[in-house]
Amino acid sequence: MAMEQVPVSLPFVGGKKATFQHPLGPLTANEISETARLVKGLWPSNTNIQFKTITLQEPDKAELVPFLAAEHAGQQTPAIERKSFVVYYIRNTDKLHEAIVNLSLDKIEHNVRLGPFVHSNADGEEIIAVEKIALEDAGVQAEIAKLQLPEGTVIISDPWIYGSDGINDGLFVDEKRMFQCFLYVRDPNNSGEVDSNHYAMPLSISPVVSAETLKVTRIDILPTGVDNTIKEPTPYKVQPANEYIPEAHNLRTDLKPLNVVQPEGASFQVTNFSEQGHAVTWQKWEFKVGFNFREGMVLYDVHYAGRPLFYRLSLSDMNIPYADPRHPYHKKAAFDLGDAGAGIMANNLQLGCDCLGSIHYLSAVLNDDKGEPLQMPNCICIHEQDGGIGWKHTNYRTGRAAVVRNRELVLQSIITVSNYEYILAFQFNQAGEITYEVRATGILSTQPIDEGISVPWGTVVHPGVLAAFHQHIFSLRVDPMLDGHHNRLVYDEAHPMPRSDFNPHGIGYTVTETPVTTAGGYDLDVDVNRTFKIQNASVKNPINGKSVAYKIHVPPFQKMLADKESFHHKRAEFADHNIYVTSHKDGELYAGGKYTNQSRGGTGVRSWADRKDNVLDAEPVVWVQFGINHIPRIEDFPVMPCEIIKVSLKPVNFFDKNPAIDVPPSEQSFNKSVLASMNHAQEAGEAVIGQNGEVCCVKESSKL
Amino acid sequence: MAMEQVPVSLPFVGGKKATFQHPLGPLTANEISETARLVKGLWPSNTNIQFKTITLQEPDKAELVPFLAAEHAGQQTPAIERKSFVVYYIRNTDKLHEAIVNLSLDKIEHNVRLGPFVHSNADGEEIIAVEKIALEDAGVQAEIAKLQLPEGTVIISDPWIYGSDGINDGLFVDEKRMFQCFLYVRDPNNSGEVDSNHYAMPLSISPVVSAETLKVTRIDILPTGVDNTIKEPTPYKVQPANEYIPEAHNLRTDLKPLNVVQPEGASFQVTNFSEQGHAVTWQKWEFKVGFNFREGMVLYDVHYAGRPLFYRLSLSDMNIPYADPRHPYHKKAAFDLGDAGAGIMANNLQLGCDCLGSIHYLSAVLNDDKGEPLQMPNCICIHEQDGGIGWKHTNYRTGRAAVVRNRELVLQSIITVSNYEYILAFQFNQAGEITYEVRATGILSTQPIDEGISVPWGTVVHPGVLAAFHQHIFSLRVDPMLDGHHNRLVYDEAHPMPRSDFNPHGIGYTVTETPVTTAGGYDLDVDVNRTFKIQNASVKNPINGKSVAYKIHVPPFQKMLADKESFHHKRAEFADHNIYVTSHKDGELYAGGKYTNQSRGGTGVRSWADRKDNVLDAEPVVWVQFGINHIPRIEDFPVMPCEIIKVSLKPVNFFDKNPAIDVPPSEQSFNKSVLASMNHAQEAGEAVIGQNGEVCCVKESSKL
Repeated sequence: MAMEQVPVSLPFVGGKKATFQHPLGPLTANEISETARLVKGLWPSNTNIQFKTITLQEPDKAELVPFLAAEHAGQQTPAIERKSFVVYYIRNTDKLHEAIVNLSLDKIEHNVRLGPFVHSNADGEEIIAVEKIALEDAGVQAEIAKLQLPEGTVIISDPWIYGSDGINDGLFVDEKRMFQCFLYVRDPNNSGEVDSNHYAMPLSISPVVSAETLKVTRIDILPTGVDNTIKEPTPYKVQPANEYIPEAHNLRTDLKPLNVVQPEGASFQVTNFSEQGHAVTWQKWEFKVGFNFREGMVLYDVHYAGRPLFYRLSLSDMNIPYADPRHPYHKKAAFDLGDAGAGIMANNLQLGCDCLGSIHYLSAVLNDDKGEPLQMPNCICIHEQDGGIGWKHTNYRTGRAAVVRNRELVLQSIITVSNYEYILAFQFNQAGEITYEVRATGILSTQPIDEGISVPWGTVVHPGVLAAFHQHIFSLRVDPMLDGHHNRLVYDEAHPMPRSDFNPHGIGYTVTETPVTTAGGYDLDVDVNRTFKIQNASVKNPINGKSVAYKIHVPPFQKMLADKESFHHKRAEFADHNIYVTSHKDGELYAGGKYTNQSRGGTGVRSWADRKDNVLDAEPVVWVQFGINHIPRIEDFPVMPCEIIKVSLKPVNFFDKNPAIDVPPSEQSFNKSVLASMNHAQEAGEAVIGQNGEVCCVKESSKL
Repeated sequence: MAMEQVPVSLPFVGGKKATFQHPLGPLTANEISETARLVKGLWPSNTNIQFKTITLQEPDKAELVPFLAAEHAGQQTPAIERKSFVVYYIRNTDKLHEAIVNLSLDKIEHNVRLGPFVHSNADGEEIIAVEKIALEDAGVQAEIAKLQLPEGTVIISDPWIYGSDGINDGLFVDEKRMFQCFLYVRDPNNSGEVDSNHYAMPLSISPVVSAETLKVTRIDILPTGVDNTIKEPTPYKVQPANEYIPEAHNLRTDLKPLNVVQPEGASFQVTNFSEQGHAVTWQKWEFKVGFNFREGMVLYDVHYAGRPLFYRLSLSDMNIPYADPRHPYHKKAAFDLGDAGAGIMANNLQLGCDCLGSIHYLSAVLNDDKGEPLQMPNCICIHEQDGGIGWKHTNYRTGRAAVVRNRELVLQSIITVSNYEYILAFQFNQAGEITYEVRATGILSTQPIDEGISVPWGTVVHPGVLAAFHQHIFSLRVDPMLDGHHNRLVYDEAHPMPRSDFNPHGIGYTVTETPVTTAGGYDLDVDVNRTFKIQNASVKNPINGKSVAYKIHVPPFQKMLADKESFHHKRAEFADHNIYVTSHKDGELYAGGKYTNQSRGGTGVRSWADRKDNVLDAEPVVWVQFGINHIPRIEDFPVMPCEIIKVSLKPVNFFDKNPAIDVPPSEQSFNKSVLASMNHAQEAGEAVIGQNGEVCCVKESSKL
């Protein structure tokens, strides 16, 4: 990456110092404003700066670890300078810069121009502008006219990140940072409905807009047949609508309310460890919650019963490559975190809609394109949920059952990335386990298809509407500190014992444990039950002498289908292995690299792993990949039922027994369940509750 | 299997005809008694019969399908004779019989002696008797004396199914049907505690008891070292206890109640379709619920929105082979359904303990060893649960979110098989999906191990206690009727397109669909995203012309590790493939065969598949295998946190859009969530709720 240095030794420009903030506290509104002011001060006063990111520059681990150690010990914490990280353009140019601002010293520490092949994420203002530019363009309007749409029809433009195919990317003026706009119409029979599902009515006209000149540079006509033939737009045939808004449906009337009630309040506590940083304690867990533009929720300094577990946990990246090989679809491969941002795309969650029960909301502050603070209300919800039975045993001799329920604490954030939604949640339980859950929902990215045909890279989900196959590949970044910072990654495998005098019946099997010594990409192998664990080899379980560990439960997935020479593969550096392990290096946070928009590869976890660093008992970072190959069903339209993927981190010989053994028993006096009042055919009131909450008898009627 | 015919043409013995029961209705108490009376009538009056099973003989599919068709059409249903199926021994002999009793005609239709290598399941009375016999045996007591246990120490005997290794099984008098008893002590320091966890104190003495003579035939001394050396029992060292009962723990005090409240009652309806059969309707679903000795819950005749989906669904079998190759552990391979019975082992569920919310319980009636009806109260609980968000989309232009919650209907049964528990549940949702969930919990099967050593086939979970590795392999039987009875099994695979002029960037991929024509075992292949679907090729989706289908979401698992020549492998005929498909044949219900106790293989799904029947557009039965290789952690002791496995059946181009699109929106007026009252440091009361339930602002305090 070529860098053009600009002078950073600026005169002190004054302004009051930021008030003390914890080194992990997200930037405050004041700090954001102060950062923008300092960056603007680098340039002549008439310079129009387009701010992309103004976020916390997290302290180096070498600085932060002693700070946190002192904090936990109740000692005086060392001073750490407060810094912000900034990405910005000189507006309407390709002049992309990244800067580090020392807020403690009120000065710019670092400011470089990036490029030529580096591009920043899109921002909300820009997307709205690009939508409009595409629709106002005379050339685009001339193409649309060929469709002979009914009067009053509303056209919608969805700008997409342009993607990369290595052909001319960024080399020519008109191939620099671009948006590919996909056009749709709202149901012409219901044009006034602003929430009509335009994805059911895609058009074949696709303008390309320059993010620099803010002009249409090209108009692609999309292929709509079985091959890559391009046909001139012809008069549009209006198909039936396919709406998702409730008023378009005869809603079910037989669903009765189900309320979650916590009469004594919730069991968790939330405090602020800084103005924008939240500390959560619940059921022996304690951790800090941050929130940034790109990753959304970040968990820091996760402890259980006072023992350190994880230094930092976050969703690091995701990539969604599509299967349609035809221009311009071949470039569709979204990095929703790097190209857009899981933080900035977070929904404003609503009570009683997005979570159930006793909910606590966290809000955040990010930045807009002017460098002003942007309030992100209710972008995380925190609540408890009942996770079913946690453990149970009945002594069949005495009939006594011991049973506890599995209470879970959920931190949830929901992001909307244009057509699509992800519901992202960290879930903690009472058995020392953390689960990261992704629910994929929202609307398929659709494209027009001629009637009566099918293609083997997509599913027709509505007349004239194709949903191309695509993969969702996620990378969860796990920076561990199990009983300390020197950890190792190992994997267990189960193998049959060979037949021998010792195993004469051929049934024996053993488990071998193999330490991973070198940074690299590693894979699951279900046939040998390969299971990765993060261990502290210097801390042994007091009962069985095994190294304390957490294992990684992650479902296998089909790796990226695009071939190794493709730009999809080069760019999504995490998409080819279930597990990557690298040696910790400050700033290596995003598996696909810091700048994913029109990226060309070489800047993510695969490249870092290629350093072949020693990771044994060093400070490994473990990158856990998971995903789905989404072969759309018609049932996924107009909005798809959630598809759920879970990754769990579970203790293995870390504690000395089931950590949930001290959970109070599940009892009626606590849970207050009731007998369901059945249909009217049923004779009610005949159930008798015994001493221990058991139902002695329930009489049922017969309809025969 | 050799069969010895006994006369079945008996004189009519009178007694009133059973009242009419639906052909799928489980046997009534009267029918059980009547069956026993008829069977006893076959034999001289002083014959002591040990009844193992008295259960419904389900009608042949050829008879039942027209019956159900008429029933759904509201037409007169054809008469179907009511029959029961019986397995019994002449008590204290090896004379095992199976019989079919025609209850409509009050006569025995079929009665054969089975053997010599066929053995029935254990029953509760027998197990209690065997426990006692082992402990009262003078030879066993002499061995126990060598342990020099403290006065008052209580010994516990856990009889296990003997297993098979092919050596002398059933050939000699003293090698017929046997129990292997594993002995434990209750904590000698707390001998009065009847619910003390004896699994934390295993002994090395293991008596073998004949189920026929009810005598100890052999006393095994268990190996306790790193090899198979057998050491004479020596004085027992009392280790600390490891209890699971709540009074043994300082319970957490910071967990606040979480109640599930349905102020208007539950949304489902339960009626009786026969005296013991229950019909459930909920959210467009309707199905019948049966319950039997072996499978526990069985679902029949499952419809969604009036369309037929599944003819019969049940857990068909499970096998738990252990990894320790040493005698007698090498024979440990439990078939919990065939050796014991998921029905007869079902817990009596308690309100507020095993389910949360508005609960409806189903009870059942099975038989005891005398042929008397045995009441099984509350063996199934039915309730609704909130499954999180069902689907969501936010229009980023208008900010309007459409969101529904995923309400689920759960039918749950919990079984205790000696030390271990399984929580088994069918879950239905509003998107036309069925999930079968297994939660594995309970106590590990433990064995003694010398202090200070470790072995590679087990984990030390407590001082002196080894939990051997083992696999849990389940088989879910799916008998489909998607829009009719002629269905097919197909599998999809995703493959990269080769590079070509059509795919110049190497990113394209396609999905191929392959029909399965022949019965056999088939496997998942994550690397090609192989996904099995059940299809009706004669019914096409009206929008996209694809065959209507349901796909099978099942996680891959490590197949049985025991080698192909081993008796473990021969017996667990389902344990070697993810999917089996067979042509429907009446009576083929249990993947491991009808009689699993000390079985020798050749009688299960692998054998049926070997007929190589055509299954294309015939009436296929699909057997879905799943499981875990349980490498115990110390955290799994004394009772393990639930390990959850899910198998889902999801529509694929079966409907014409998301079936849950008509679920009413998730709204605060319906859900009645509240803002959590946080810790006292927090200033409460500052949150304002807006018009749509959104939280306008929540002020948070700072603790800095």
